[in-house]
Amino acid sequence: MATAIDIHTHIVPFELPDCPAAASATRWPQMQPGADCHHRNVVIAGKIFRTVSDDCWDVSRRLSAMDAAGITTQVLSPMPELLSYWIDTRDALVLGRAVNDAIGAIVEQAPGRFIGLGMVPMQDPELAAREVEALMRDERFRGVEIGTNVNGISIADPRFAPVFAAAEATGAAIFVHALHPGGDNHLIGSPALKAVVAFPCETALAIAGLMTSGTLSRFPRLRIAFSHGGGAFGLVLPRLLHGWKVLASVGKAMTESPAEIARRLYYDSLVYDATTLDFLVRVFGERQIMIGTDYPFDIFERDPIGVVRATGLPDATLERLTGGNARQFLRLPH
Amino acid sequence: MATAIDIHTHIVPFELPDCPAAASATRWPQMQPGADCHHRNVVIAGKIFRTVSDDCWDVSRRLSAMDAAGITTQVLSPMPELLSYWIDTRDALVLGRAVNDAIGAIVEQAPGRFIGLGMVPMQDPELAAREVEALMRDERFRGVEIGTNVNGISIADPRFAPVFAAAEATGAAIFVHALHPGGDNHLIGSPALKAVVAFPCETALAIAGLMTSGTLSRFPRLRIAFSHGGGAFGLVLPRLLHGWKVLASVGKAMTESPAEIARRLYYDSLVYDATTLDFLVRVFGERQIMIGTDYPFDIFERDPIGVVRATGLPDATLERLTGGNARQFLRLPH
Repeated sequence: MATAIDIHTHIVPFELPDCPAAASATRWPQMQPGADCHHRNVVIAGKIFRTVSDDCWDVSRRLSAMDAAGITTQVLSPMPELLSYWIDTRDALVLGRAVNDAIGAIVEQAPGRFIGLGMVPMQDPELAAREVEALMRDERFRGVEIGTNVNGISIADPRFAPVFAAAEATGAAIFVHALHPGGDNHLIGSPALKAVVAFPCETALAIAGLMTSGTLSRFPRLRIAFSHGGGAFGLVLPRLLHGWKVLASVGKAMTESPAEIARRLYYDSLVYDATTLDFLVRVFGERQIMIGTDYPFDIFERDPIGVVRATGLPDATLERLTGGNARQFLRLPH
Repeated sequence: MATAIDIHTHIVPFELPDCPAAASATRWPQMQPGADCHHRNVVIAGKIFRTVSDDCWDVSRRLSAMDAAGITTQVLSPMPELLSYWIDTRDALVLGRAVNDAIGAIVEQAPGRFIGLGMVPMQDPELAAREVEALMRDERFRGVEIGTNVNGISIADPRFAPVFAAAEATGAAIFVHALHPGGDNHLIGSPALKAVVAFPCETALAIAGLMTSGTLSRFPRLRIAFSHGGGAFGLVLPRLLHGWKVLASVGKAMTESPAEIARRLYYDSLVYDATTLDFLVRVFGERQIMIGTDYPFDIFERDPIGVVRATGLPDATLERLTGGNARQFLRLPH
């Protein structure tokens, strides 16, 4: 296979700027020394949010891992908690630009091996739209990462239309990552279950919302991808399709079949299982799924190409999943 | 095929008793005349919750529909909103017994064609456990229907252990139906999307919770089924399995692999799509899935046997899905 593009990897900068305003200080992320020189702590609201390793910012560490896994190119996006939709817009803009600068710096250090997806302050959709446009004038970036919700408001809410309009107009790819999922009162056990169990449902609700709100029909040329294989959406879709056919109120919300819309969205392959990945290819089509690993966090997929190959799909499909679809999503030259 | 058992059908009684106490009156369901003699309105809190047709209570209407669809036996459970976990326990007991009496009366009217699953007041788990025991002394019933949560508390919460203990001890089958799903602030459009989009996620969270809380390992002989093919759980499972393997905090919550636990639970076939159903058979095993239709509500599956057959699975598997697995779940004689 020619190239393998991993569209779901995260970075955390080695340093973050100081908080510019007292009002945002409580939830402003800070980087502090960790237990050894390879680790640092992301401290938010006085607590260690996550201890991260130098894989998060060190280009040589990333390149070694990529070579070991057969990944040609990593698409870099912020660790989702850095999206900081919950701090004041002006301060979030300062933080976002610092994070984007860190992404851009990695892209520059190894030309051709990294592509950036930046962050934008979704708490002010018009400002976020302008930031999308600015990022698209920077050749180190091909688009943005956004969360599934902004302070509990689904990104499918009409207030976020300016961001999707700007993305469609500028050709920015959008990578939607689960964030602060609802339903976490139903989780019993480790706080890690938020990401493990609630993320897939959160993503499914976001995709369904983008369909039923009409957003995806209003912006049909949008190139938008969803984390973790679209989460649980592949199993929500047949029910949504049935509802669209038989329930008048659901039918009139969507001018197109949800199954059709689903087959022009993109999804990463991050489901850890070949049977599941094969099911997603059947449901979403062979042109919509791209490698995603969640590198370098605990839960990352160590053998993304192995899982793709284990589906036993034909070579042409494997090449699409491994790199071709990502080229389309990111509008890279062939 | 010998017999076809539909484990997911609902009833609404023609009449419900008057509310016994003023304190519960606001949320007590009442049956009122509808637009014509075939329809009645379920009125809750002064509003029409749903207009229902005589399929909900009329045995001859049900038998005709069953014959048309090739269904030998319907398993009857209350329309989930009747579960009334949100009214005073003592009043809920009165309501529940009236609903159970209506189910029992249908079972009596056509011996061998109907099997009852009753309702119990989950707002008082000890009382609910006693009601499970009482139902299991009534040969018209083989178990109970419960919601995925009780006033926002997941059924996986340890407080509900007495109900699962009683079910395991008496051999009662438990049918878990999605109810009042979380995450509905993420839905945009018709109120019907609660059932269409949020139910599958709600069910997935309930199953995951029953695993991570240890409930399903504590009661390994429980026969428990989940509505709508387990909702979105089939796509949450591979991620939960990966988390169980690589994250210490998730690993220690479950003494067994979630994939193993998943293959001793039961699920209905209500996914409206043969590709999806085939995927569920691969994930959960050919002995765990049973026909479910949601008869007689708007969204019900008109051709449940057709969907099962369209999977193209071997005849022996089709027979299990159509009736054999339900016999195991309900402990019916072979």
